Amino acid sequence: MNCLSDLSGVFANAVRAKIRGESSDHLDLGYLYVPACTACSVFGTRNHFRSSSVTVSLEHASKAIPKVLIVNSGNSNAVTGKGGEENTRKIISLAANVFNVSDIEVLNASTGIIGVPLPMHKIQSSFPSLTENIRLSRGDLLQKAILTTDLVEKFAYSVKSVRNKDIIAAGIAKGSGMIAPNMGTMFAFIVINFPIKKNVLDSMMKEIVDTTFNMMSVDTDTSTSDMVVVFANGDGEKERDIDSDEHDACRQVLEDVCVSLSTQIAKDGEGASKLLTVHVKGSKTIDDARRIAKAVSDSPLVKTAVHGADPNWGRVLMAIGKQPEVIVVPECVSVSFGSYAVFQYGEPVSFDRELLRQYLSESEVVIHIDLGAGSESAVSYGCDLTKGYIDINTCYN
Amino acid sequence: MNCLSDLSGVFANAVRAKIRGESSDHLDLGYLYVPACTACSVFGTRNHFRSSSVTVSLEHASKAIPKVLIVNSGNSNAVTGKGGEENTRKIISLAANVFNVSDIEVLNASTGIIGVPLPMHKIQSSFPSLTENIRLSRGDLLQKAILTTDLVEKFAYSVKSVRNKDIIAAGIAKGSGMIAPNMGTMFAFIVINFPIKKNVLDSMMKEIVDTTFNMMSVDTDTSTSDMVVVFANGDGEKERDIDSDEHDACRQVLEDVCVSLSTQIAKDGEGASKLLTVHVKGSKTIDDARRIAKAVSDSPLVKTAVHGADPNWGRVLMAIGKQPEVIVVPECVSVSFGSYAVFQYGEPVSFDRELLRQYLSESEVVIHIDLGAGSESAVSYGCDLTKGYIDINTCYN
Repeated sequence: MNCLSDLSGVFANAVRAKIRGESSDHLDLGYLYVPACTACSVFGTRNHFRSSSVTVSLEHASKAIPKVLIVNSGNSNAVTGKGGEENTRKIISLAANVFNVSDIEVLNASTGIIGVPLPMHKIQSSFPSLTENIRLSRGDLLQKAILTTDLVEKFAYSVKSVRNKDIIAAGIAKGSGMIAPNMGTMFAFIVINFPIKKNVLDSMMKEIVDTTFNMMSVDTDTSTSDMVVVFANGDGEKERDIDSDEHDACRQVLEDVCVSLSTQIAKDGEGASKLLTVHVKGSKTIDDARRIAKAVSDSPLVKTAVHGADPNWGRVLMAIGKQPEVIVVPECVSVSFGSYAVFQYGEPVSFDRELLRQYLSESEVVIHIDLGAGSESAVSYGCDLTKGYIDINTCYN
Repeated sequence: MNCLSDLSGVFANAVRAKIRGESSDHLDLGYLYVPACTACSVFGTRNHFRSSSVTVSLEHASKAIPKVLIVNSGNSNAVTGKGGEENTRKIISLAANVFNVSDIEVLNASTGIIGVPLPMHKIQSSFPSLTENIRLSRGDLLQKAILTTDLVEKFAYSVKSVRNKDIIAAGIAKGSGMIAPNMGTMFAFIVINFPIKKNVLDSMMKEIVDTTFNMMSVDTDTSTSDMVVVFANGDGEKERDIDSDEHDACRQVLEDVCVSLSTQIAKDGEGASKLLTVHVKGSKTIDDARRIAKAVSDSPLVKTAVHGADPNWGRVLMAIGKQPEVIVVPECVSVSFGSYAVFQYGEPVSFDRELLRQYLSESEVVIHIDLGAGSESAVSYGCDLTKGYIDINTCYN
């Protein structure tokens, strides 16, 4: 499997609408079409200034089972005032007409610059070529069209067999900066080839989003426009109850895809040269474990030390301890980088500086933290902080 | 006035103890001595891994009126285990002996690398030359000795006359990275020439620290070792009640000094090229105003845009909205950079892009936010994010 449209009954396409400007040859307008969709879960950013594409999509997903997603990159249609919402609804009407569904069966997603009106004439004039054939299998183009500052495409799939039926989840994602999701920012569009009911899909995905996309951060900033959409694709079969084997398999393949996409996004963080994952265990509560894992992978001083392969472990302790409201008992805490212990039960441990420096030079660094206070755990996904991030963001506009 | 020891009855000195290594010629060990001190307030970092210098100093300030502060830079003596606390107590005993006071009348402050044992032999062998004369007026050396990655010295003073007596507060500070104080991280050592009582000084400073040092952030990371110390210097006069004119004057000069030192620290943030202050008004609660002001000045995307003089105001809205638990009504919000309005009552406003770019190129940028929801306000002090920050922090060790 190489793209979403390799799943049976899933269609996609993308074109160049020149949303970034006349000289741009970036694919920037696409559709994802799942005609036999039995359930659709949408998670939108919780930023108060969220794009009308998010609010309208959430509204539609609460009223119907959406089957079409229209997505553009280059402009997020966020904080564009009342005109912004009118534009979202115009795009949706346009699509509803072409795909022969009602407006509430269409979702819209937009990503890119904030506060600039969408160039509607470009979107309208590109719509006929985008939708000339609504059953194309160009998921390969769609996964390119959603990218902004991303350097690599993000695709993942996972398969589990239950009684000789392959349950497959596949997803694409974008996201590189302004990544500290809350209820799932960035884009991830996922399809599972199983006719799950909406309430089951919703509760399954709520848990998965909390431990994957919501535990990922490139720069602690939370986008105004991004969302996670999951389509359950009946492909002929009607929505139905699932038994516990099927439930476990569905949950597993969805989680696999979300972990993989989260890791791919963190690794491709703006300017990032390496993936940083932080594993916290021994916590009294899951919430504490999550907050500490994120505090460490979000700390600019930890991120720069990891970038420089500098075994400056004191910064990890600093970040563990910096939230006064999350109780930490220093004497119970142990920390290691990969398999190299640097701090045990509140005391520094001697280690081979050169070997640790080599480990920190690898493209994936794992920090293990044991709080020694309970049995809950969490994992966060982040990246290092480099001059590339500064380059990309000093003159984005 | 050029330094702390220009105040009558305030003594200071510093020497080179080579704490950073044999080749270092950095002043790194100093004393501040206020023999006629009538009250002393100490605010320590709330990081759970705080240095024993902080915990022992807080303990002493709760038991006595400290008169001596011994400070070193180059090593923070934080997360150094039980041996770290023994070293703090040894330094304090050494000083108590020389200054002829009891141990609990001595404070200790250490700043620099985390997790490395203090080179005690160097401190012990430099102590005689540091304290050969305990009534030196070398505040100029002390304000150099406390610096780490700072590029400039930080000194401030303020004077108010009450019935022909000049009430003067003067202070020095250090701090450049790992700056997101909570109860006053970084160092600020302040003297006021007035015999205020401890309970009055404590409550006055609690309010001031909350609106100055606690509203300043270079990088959202919170130091493990830093503190704010304020000595009330009777200089012969015993502690006494103050009337409302004197109270106002004392509060004003202390606040002036803390605002100035906070601004100086933010402006000299690691790698910073400009000061960024964020003024929030129209908030329902002070807490909301503070959280939003800090979210904006802490946002790496706002900081990099300011660095690049990029009028990418959408990022300011993104940062205002990114804390779901702080309620914001987009339709009520207005934003301007200096005097340039970019967003009013939920709608983008057209502005002269070139003029705004010029304004953003200045060395001090002010962002004004009106939430339109109440009458509370707050100000935060921050700086831009540059490649200099990455350079400094990838190989600190």
